[in-house]
Amino acid sequence: MATPSLLPVVLAADNFPACAAYPSHHPDTGEVYVPFHIAPADHAARLSPVGLLRPAVLAALDGDAAFVSHRAGNAVECVTFAPDVLAGGRQAMDKAIADTAARWRAAGLFTPALAGWRDELYAIYASPRSAAFATPPRGGWRNAAFACERAACAVWGFATFGVHMTAYEGEGGSMKIWVPRRSPTKATWPGMLDNTVAGGITAGMTPRDTMIKECDEEASLPASLVEARLRNVGLATYWYITKAGFLQPEVEYLYDLPLPPRDSADYVLPRPHDDEVESFHLMTVPEVIEALHRGEFKPNCGIILVDFLIRHSLITPENEPDYIEICWHMRRRLGVGMPA
Amino acid sequence: MATPSLLPVVLAADNFPACAAYPSHHPDTGEVYVPFHIAPADHAARLSPVGLLRPAVLAALDGDAAFVSHRAGNAVECVTFAPDVLAGGRQAMDKAIADTAARWRAAGLFTPALAGWRDELYAIYASPRSAAFATPPRGGWRNAAFACERAACAVWGFATFGVHMTAYEGEGGSMKIWVPRRSPTKATWPGMLDNTVAGGITAGMTPRDTMIKECDEEASLPASLVEARLRNVGLATYWYITKAGFLQPEVEYLYDLPLPPRDSADYVLPRPHDDEVESFHLMTVPEVIEALHRGEFKPNCGIILVDFLIRHSLITPENEPDYIEICWHMRRRLGVGMPA
Repeated sequence: MATPSLLPVVLAADNFPACAAYPSHHPDTGEVYVPFHIAPADHAARLSPVGLLRPAVLAALDGDAAFVSHRAGNAVECVTFAPDVLAGGRQAMDKAIADTAARWRAAGLFTPALAGWRDELYAIYASPRSAAFATPPRGGWRNAAFACERAACAVWGFATFGVHMTAYEGEGGSMKIWVPRRSPTKATWPGMLDNTVAGGITAGMTPRDTMIKECDEEASLPASLVEARLRNVGLATYWYITKAGFLQPEVEYLYDLPLPPRDSADYVLPRPHDDEVESFHLMTVPEVIEALHRGEFKPNCGIILVDFLIRHSLITPENEPDYIEICWHMRRRLGVGMPA
Repeated sequence: MATPSLLPVVLAADNFPACAAYPSHHPDTGEVYVPFHIAPADHAARLSPVGLLRPAVLAALDGDAAFVSHRAGNAVECVTFAPDVLAGGRQAMDKAIADTAARWRAAGLFTPALAGWRDELYAIYASPRSAAFATPPRGGWRNAAFACERAACAVWGFATFGVHMTAYEGEGGSMKIWVPRRSPTKATWPGMLDNTVAGGITAGMTPRDTMIKECDEEASLPASLVEARLRNVGLATYWYITKAGFLQPEVEYLYDLPLPPRDSADYVLPRPHDDEVESFHLMTVPEVIEALHRGEFKPNCGIILVDFLIRHSLITPENEPDYIEICWHMRRRLGVGMPA
């Protein structure tokens, strides 16, 4: 169904031009980020870049025949694919990104990021007006320009996309939330608390399909129950930067799963299925808030639980002094390529 | 109840420093905006300004003894209260703002904005670290630095704060939303569709108290019903600029009111009370979306209804191509003084 976009409705109220797209440098360290574009024309047209390159990555790309650094005087203004890669289209771009990442990994470069190699491809989005597309694609994630190994995205500063779901029982004061503890053997954030079900969106999957698949894989929640009760409730976007300084702009599509009453025929208990989750616990809202304050949740699960508690009237302007600042932080304009 | 802030939890994920606070100029017209601060020290400390001044307002302030324009070479870097106003504290600031706005109004200046004079005072917030405060205030809207007539806020580029509520019956596909039509005699947006109940927050009121009061005044909804069922669900922030170029950064605290079933004892029909609303209509979701596309809603009601439809799983990433861009536009970082 091709629904006409409601963006004009939103722009009627938020009608001051949006400014300040991507960060050009780190405000504290001064480290400069160079935009990575598909083609020089995209940079000239001031389109959003597909990624942001740190100085070390810029240096590692020097001499790589698949990429061109465009200079203005001494400074690199942007990096793009080389003309022959562009001429080869999507397949050639996929290969250029894959070959370069593989070479870096073999050379032991960017270890903190590339050590988590997953053999999982993520779609990287260019502006619909990019030279990558003969005609501007519209909707349905058709402006994916190429793919990149999940673990390498942070090296290029590519945005990644995921889904997060909160399953809960009851409402208001009696609400309880299903919280898993991550397996102690997981490569990232072992042993920490997590959202009920979450996962990354691999190339070619929609958010909703990813969510339904992960519900089965991570929590043994049957597709029939999830499809009937899953509610899409918004978005969290945030700029995460790793301790080593890698940029990980992230978009999480958010879902609620209100579970049926315990005494109903279709009640289902979330339980671990694959080896990602150690155990599930049903926590009260005060218990969740305490665990958040103690830093027991994986960081991006914290941001998403806070969004959940705001939407469910459990964090309010009256009980949270930083209400407005919090709301802004969970909807950061990322300024790099997005589905559109 | 002094709840500890969850901001650190959110900053654990959105941990790249926030940049690009307020717009320094209009990207298209080039019109420059000069920050209005309480005191020069606030500007030196790079705190958020309390407002943004257009060139015409800057010119009108020239020679006003209550204000000082601080220059760097030929350009005005910021405007602040004059030292004797600062020494007089909040009362003196209130008076300086009131006197200046009254003088402008008497002189017929800034007519499109000041013509809507309301005799209604709004609180203007400075950074908690502003020189306006002996010790940094915390929570409970205690960082209100002074007050300003509602209609004059756009002249100074002060942020204004309001509440918006959507009352609805049913859920999912069978949901219906109560939509009022504004009185044809209203000064602003006469005859347009509106959110069920909305209003501005006057100095000294909390969002929730304002909401409960407006529910009675605009829709005859009794406080007992509203207090029991009102749900705080988030925030919309947007940069509105009028045709005449006045800046109106706005924050709207958002509420849902799920009405009880029709056959229950506490069901209540919204009906006009004061002269602001002509009539209420119960609209289906497709009817609301059609009216949004036709531009029948007052602009900021459009943005808030889109947020409602997103939270209720009626606008999804699968049916809205501009989903991410829309989510960003309804949570613009405003960069001027906010409650904190």
